Amino acid sequence: MASRSRTFAFQGELGAFSHAAAQKLLGTNITPLPRNSFRDIFEALRSDEAAFAVVPIENTLHGSVHENYDHLLDYGFPVVGETSLRISHQLIAMPGIRFRDIRKAFSHPVALNQCRNFFKKHPAIEPVPFYDTAGSVKMLSEQMPPAAAAIASETAAHIYGGIIQRGHIEDDAQNFTRFFLLSKQIKKAPPAVGEPKTSIVFSTPNQPGALFKAMACFALRDLNLTKVESRPLRGKPWEYLFYIDLLGSVDDEPVKNALANLAELSQFLKILGSYRPTP
Amino acid sequence: MASRSRTFAFQGELGAFSHAAAQKLLGTNITPLPRNSFRDIFEALRSDEAAFAVVPIENTLHGSVHENYDHLLDYGFPVVGETSLRISHQLIAMPGIRFRDIRKAFSHPVALNQCRNFFKKHPAIEPVPFYDTAGSVKMLSEQMPPAAAAIASETAAHIYGGIIQRGHIEDDAQNFTRFFLLSKQIKKAPPAVGEPKTSIVFSTPNQPGALFKAMACFALRDLNLTKVESRPLRGKPWEYLFYIDLLGSVDDEPVKNALANLAELSQFLKILGSYRPTP
Repeated sequence: MASRSRTFAFQGELGAFSHAAAQKLLGTNITPLPRNSFRDIFEALRSDEAAFAVVPIENTLHGSVHENYDHLLDYGFPVVGETSLRISHQLIAMPGIRFRDIRKAFSHPVALNQCRNFFKKHPAIEPVPFYDTAGSVKMLSEQMPPAAAAIASETAAHIYGGIIQRGHIEDDAQNFTRFFLLSKQIKKAPPAVGEPKTSIVFSTPNQPGALFKAMACFALRDLNLTKVESRPLRGKPWEYLFYIDLLGSVDDEPVKNALANLAELSQFLKILGSYRPTP
Repeated sequence: MASRSRTFAFQGELGAFSHAAAQKLLGTNITPLPRNSFRDIFEALRSDEAAFAVVPIENTLHGSVHENYDHLLDYGFPVVGETSLRISHQLIAMPGIRFRDIRKAFSHPVALNQCRNFFKKHPAIEPVPFYDTAGSVKMLSEQMPPAAAAIASETAAHIYGGIIQRGHIEDDAQNFTRFFLLSKQIKKAPPAVGEPKTSIVFSTPNQPGALFKAMACFALRDLNLTKVESRPLRGKPWEYLFYIDLLGSVDDEPVKNALANLAELSQFLKILGSYRPTP
């Protein structure tokens, strides 16, 4: 049985894009713990079944994953790393199946929809919805349906012994997902290069200009913001959560001062973590 | 043939959540034009096949739909209305099928995943991925598979003659999508109540505090912002697009002045439109 200290939880089947992101963050010498839902990932960390968790936090086409921000606030595990992954889709078939024989391509409907041009060019291949991208390759490897392929990541092809029949079949090359690496203990963060960043969530009183004053805390110290996002609080009209990412670590004096300043002005302030991005 | 002046384009099958949002915005006496992709909706407006378009712009769980912001910038059609819709899932079967006989529930995997508690409580019912929520009800009505149900909107049940066997089976009641109503001509906006809002997109020079200065344009005039979001521009490190929604119309003097002020400070500024929300 694998040591829990070398285990990470992620959502999806082995070979999911989150699995590929985890390999960028942690290397390949670590045990994956696939989970069905984002909540189950956080539960795996809480119960010490996993030492790390990898969660998607935003996508260049689909925006921020608010559900994971909610879990970060609920569970309170620090963010200890970050990486971005290009979401590139591969047409994968089991060995022995030729491209010209493929009549069906299984995948998650979101992935199928991101490969519309491919299906237009190849009308003989029918897109078939499946519950998961990597799961569709797993299904091919187990059931070997005739004339079938799947659309998933390169990692999924490797894991299930599939052959990439056509690579990079997505319509939009600008599809990137940003992932957070979580751990219960900050000191477990893997070594990483790059300038540190800090992510925070806060809310302000319901007054015109409240966000302006909050931003002043950073502008007065010449701190660079790399993300600003408001999120309405349901059931509380005109109240908002704000997500901010900034360059610098909570150990830097100007960042420390800016956050102390912001704490005076905000109703609620949570520092998600300081971390170094993995390129 | 329906008059094009009473036609609206939306993404998905008849009965999709976008269709339900359009009925809130435009009433039911208007002809739906279902399209496969968001781009196809904008094309239908460009070619005058539709007088209106209804597009999702953000969701409380999944964030902003950046793709539709991109199309708004590319096509330049004004936003003339806005509404929010609670995404509530119904278990729908064709008449004659009893709840206790249901063994499969077809739907889009995102919807299936939003009803996890329902499937836990009813292990005899297997979730089956399908390309579209409303499309799964359409399929039931056409093919009448035995022991089958679908998960989709109330609107889809009505359109395809389905019976709602269990209502509101989603895990999270706080799942809302916000939609924009688009038209080529601002004067086509339907009558609506509520205080006007204005949506803009802009970018600032890459300098610390640039966003702070931009926000000053609004704070100095006591204007209330209801959305602030930064979006990194791919391939241009440290350059961002900003989405801002504010209370007030471009016809109001303070808004006009704030936008003139912002134009001085921004590299790019696009007013998406002023509109009155439909509750």
